[in-house]
Amino acid sequence: MKLRLFFTVVGATFLLAAYAHYFSENEMFQFIAAAISVVFLAAWLGKSTESVAHYAGDRIGGFLNATFGNAAELIIAFFLVKEGLFEMVKASITGAIIGNMLLVLGLSVLMGGLKYKEQKFNSRLAGHNASLMMLAIVALFIPAVFIRELPPVKIETLSIVIAVLLILAYVLWLVFSMITHSDFLSDIEEHESAPLWSKGVSILMLAISTIFVAIDSEWLVHSVQHVSKSLGWSELFVGAFVIAIIGNAAEHSAAMLLAMKGRIGAAVEIAIGSSLQIALFVAPTLILLSFVLGKPMNIVFTSFELAAIGVATFITISITKDGATNWFEGVLLLAVYIILGTAFFFV
Amino acid sequence: MKLRLFFTVVGATFLLAAYAHYFSENEMFQFIAAAISVVFLAAWLGKSTESVAHYAGDRIGGFLNATFGNAAELIIAFFLVKEGLFEMVKASITGAIIGNMLLVLGLSVLMGGLKYKEQKFNSRLAGHNASLMMLAIVALFIPAVFIRELPPVKIETLSIVIAVLLILAYVLWLVFSMITHSDFLSDIEEHESAPLWSKGVSILMLAISTIFVAIDSEWLVHSVQHVSKSLGWSELFVGAFVIAIIGNAAEHSAAMLLAMKGRIGAAVEIAIGSSLQIALFVAPTLILLSFVLGKPMNIVFTSFELAAIGVATFITISITKDGATNWFEGVLLLAVYIILGTAFFFV
Amino acid sequence: MKLRLFFTVVGATFLLAAYAHYFSENEMFQFIAAAISVVFLAAWLGKSTESVAHYAGDRIGGFLNATFGNAAELIIAFFLVKEGLFEMVKASITGAIIGNMLLVLGLSVLMGGLKYKEQKFNSRLAGHNASLMMLAIVALFIPAVFIRELPPVKIETLSIVIAVLLILAYVLWLVFSMITHSDFLSDIEEHESAPLWSKGVSILMLAISTIFVAIDSEWLVHSVQHVSKSLGWSELFVGAFVIAIIGNAAEHSAAMLLAMKGRIGAAVEIAIGSSLQIALFVAPTLILLSFVLGKPMNIVFTSFELAAIGVATFITISITKDGATNWFEGVLLLAVYIILGTAFFFV
Repeated sequence: MKLRLFFTVVGATFLLAAYAHYFSENEMFQFIAAAISVVFLAAWLGKSTESVAHYAGDRIGGFLNATFGNAAELIIAFFLVKEGLFEMVKASITGAIIGNMLLVLGLSVLMGGLKYKEQKFNSRLAGHNASLMMLAIVALFIPAVFIRELPPVKIETLSIVIAVLLILAYVLWLVFSMITHSDFLSDIEEHESAPLWSKGVSILMLAISTIFVAIDSEWLVHSVQHVSKSLGWSELFVGAFVIAIIGNAAEHSAAMLLAMKGRIGAAVEIAIGSSLQIALFVAPTLILLSFVLGKPMNIVFTSFELAAIGVATFITISITKDGATNWFEGVLLLAVYIILGTAFFFV
Repeated sequence: MKLRLFFTVVGATFLLAAYAHYFSENEMFQFIAAAISVVFLAAWLGKSTESVAHYAGDRIGGFLNATFGNAAELIIAFFLVKEGLFEMVKASITGAIIGNMLLVLGLSVLMGGLKYKEQKFNSRLAGHNASLMMLAIVALFIPAVFIRELPPVKIETLSIVIAVLLILAYVLWLVFSMITHSDFLSDIEEHESAPLWSKGVSILMLAISTIFVAIDSEWLVHSVQHVSKSLGWSELFVGAFVIAIIGNAAEHSAAMLLAMKGRIGAAVEIAIGSSLQIALFVAPTLILLSFVLGKPMNIVFTSFELAAIGVATFITISITKDGATNWFEGVLLLAVYIILGTAFFFV
Repeated sequence: MKLRLFFTVVGATFLLAAYAHYFSENEMFQFIAAAISVVFLAAWLGKSTESVAHYAGDRIGGFLNATFGNAAELIIAFFLVKEGLFEMVKASITGAIIGNMLLVLGLSVLMGGLKYKEQKFNSRLAGHNASLMMLAIVALFIPAVFIRELPPVKIETLSIVIAVLLILAYVLWLVFSMITHSDFLSDIEEHESAPLWSKGVSILMLAISTIFVAIDSEWLVHSVQHVSKSLGWSELFVGAFVIAIIGNAAEHSAAMLLAMKGRIGAAVEIAIGSSLQIALFVAPTLILLSFVLGKPMNIVFTSFELAAIGVATFITISITKDGATNWFEGVLLLAVYIILGTAFFFV
């Protein structure tokens, strides 16, 4: 009964957003319709993720969620690369990384922490996540240090070498975490709640809801760009914050729902796993694709973007390394996010 | 008996310092008299803190000590802001932060370590302290990165936003550590020694001795400025090291006394708690006050000051994160302090 | 029997390398002969280290290995300082530090990890190593930040002060780790394999094999410089990577052999202990010697070198801090090494 009502609302709001996108010229109406729709779609995606996580365990469920969530981002960024909008691509990569680490994780930890005094997860996983993020930081930081002395052609070669290394490291990480050492990184939490659907239907639901979220996100991104232009916001801020917040709607709803059910391990996996996937897989894939497309994009980020990714990584490592979270740690993550958002807003 | 003799000496040396300050013109005499007096006043303050800590527990005792100690610094800095001496204010904030983390903590760990092979404290508290210091670093680092691109008026708005966020984070930290999670951060140590005074008298003693230390510190700061000018020392060095060392006399004596009695947890709380209070409460309060006074001071520190605060924070986090200290870790903290002191001396 | 055959091969290849060095003019032949010889000499050194470690424990064995290994580097660098080749000296110091932390440790962790699912060692030692590396980073970073504002003569004085402090810290570290707290840092591992030689013969073997490796390394360095010049490689790359890899042959073979026998604690001690010894003892000793020789070399490293040492330190701390290693962590260390190597190759 309840489920039927839910899907009726999901369908109706999606159709309204579709109508606004294709037939209306009022951008504010397009924006509001798409935003309302994304809220319900994200709730559907969250339920699907939770159900998959029930069968697959928090880590693989988190990985599937991160992958489906980032598939949309990869597709959007691919079209931006094709049009040569490199600055926008890098701003949105930066925004997605810090958005996941600070906003998604921050809200999850805070909301979960208001309900549970302390939530624990596998600290070994936190340690490995930290080391992987360090690799990503190194990969983005080194080219920025060396660029002053290098001619463009060498920066491009260096970008390709680093991109290949990062993808290789990410593939080996999947081998490590899913095959050779999957037992090491398993979750501490126990799952008692009954899942909504059977295993097969859950995975199908996850795939379909992700696609709908992706479509709706694109409409939302399209309308928000016009809305923000009329508000006078800079492209850097829109790319790194507005689009990133909307683009991460899937991760937001899934992670927060899980955290509020006491499953902070799965929430951490979604938030940090998604950041890692963007830094170690999405970003280097885009660089390699840009060379294939004949529009080479290098791996050199601006000092603002590096500073933002750097501080986000360090505060996240500091907070997750003990394998336990509480509400105040959520406050700290959100405080850093607001500081970065304000600074980007003023640039 | 002993106590009466002690207070006689405290009173006599204070009267000598007062005489020198108001009636003598010899600055070297003023300096020596104030310095001798501050040693005995600091001893009195140390005993009071210890006594309060006995009743209140190490954490609240440490918090009270840090607050009384920093009240004096806040008052002095307020007058400097009023006169527009922003560089001096920032130098003294920098000096107070690194002085507490490196000199006060270093000496406490070293002196305590010469007596006890290893001293343990609550490592959970160390983890939270580290995350809070990371927030402070982010708050100081981000404006410095973005300043190149921003007009002054935006830097001022950014400074106000960050100042409000830091104060908010500090207030929530007090809520977290004193109310919602006070049991999480409680001390491991047991206290067996009998206190000198009853609970009420102890708190009164703490308040009065702090006021006397504050008055005497001001005399000392006044005379040391003249003495150091005649020695040819730079304002940056005097502000960040000479004044900071004297201004932290209270923290020094209290922390070292506690560490030598095996209560390293209280010593860490005083040293790091005081640093945090300066970075998250005193500094942002001064920024907000400067706008109220119509003499806006931004939050942009020099690269020297940021480098000093950054390295001090990282070495302190590295040493305290395991919740145990030994003499060699005190040596490391002091070595970093001497390196920074030498570098500032030469600028 | 087997041992006699081994020493016959060691002797024969060494004589061939000696013949090539003194009587041949073909640099490629010199290079190949010296390279083959160093492989067997390094194997001899590895066996000697293992045997000494059996009697002395992993830590003292590791310390002896690091010291003998770095003695050669100190001697070579001394002659470079004498000729005023300061850039080459600093490049080779950088290369030795990152080579030990990333390549030696990375290969040891990877090879050991392919055999054992997880290898554990004393995490308290890892914590102290991290704090010491932080001190080294501070000591190299601070002069680079302050150099813009300081005249050369003050940079020289600052260099001497920092050099003396680092040597003092290193000596106190030996006192701490060998005398006052040797039991704290002892190994978890148990040694069951029988040693090859008696205690006295083992130490003798370690000393003699180190000398032979040192001699052969010099021949190799000599020929590799000519070979790499004809290949068009930069001096920075040759100094920081080619020479460093060859110069660390001793550490490589010893650490990898121990890791593959399950003694990762000794391998970590060799790799990180050697880095620490270079940063805290070899580098400052060279600076002090340069002033004695009347050819003052300051402690200011280039931003490339600082970035390389910085990222190497942070990723190594991140990976070793939990006191356990696995194959994927070896992959991460090697990935960072390849990124740095590629960047230096292009400069």
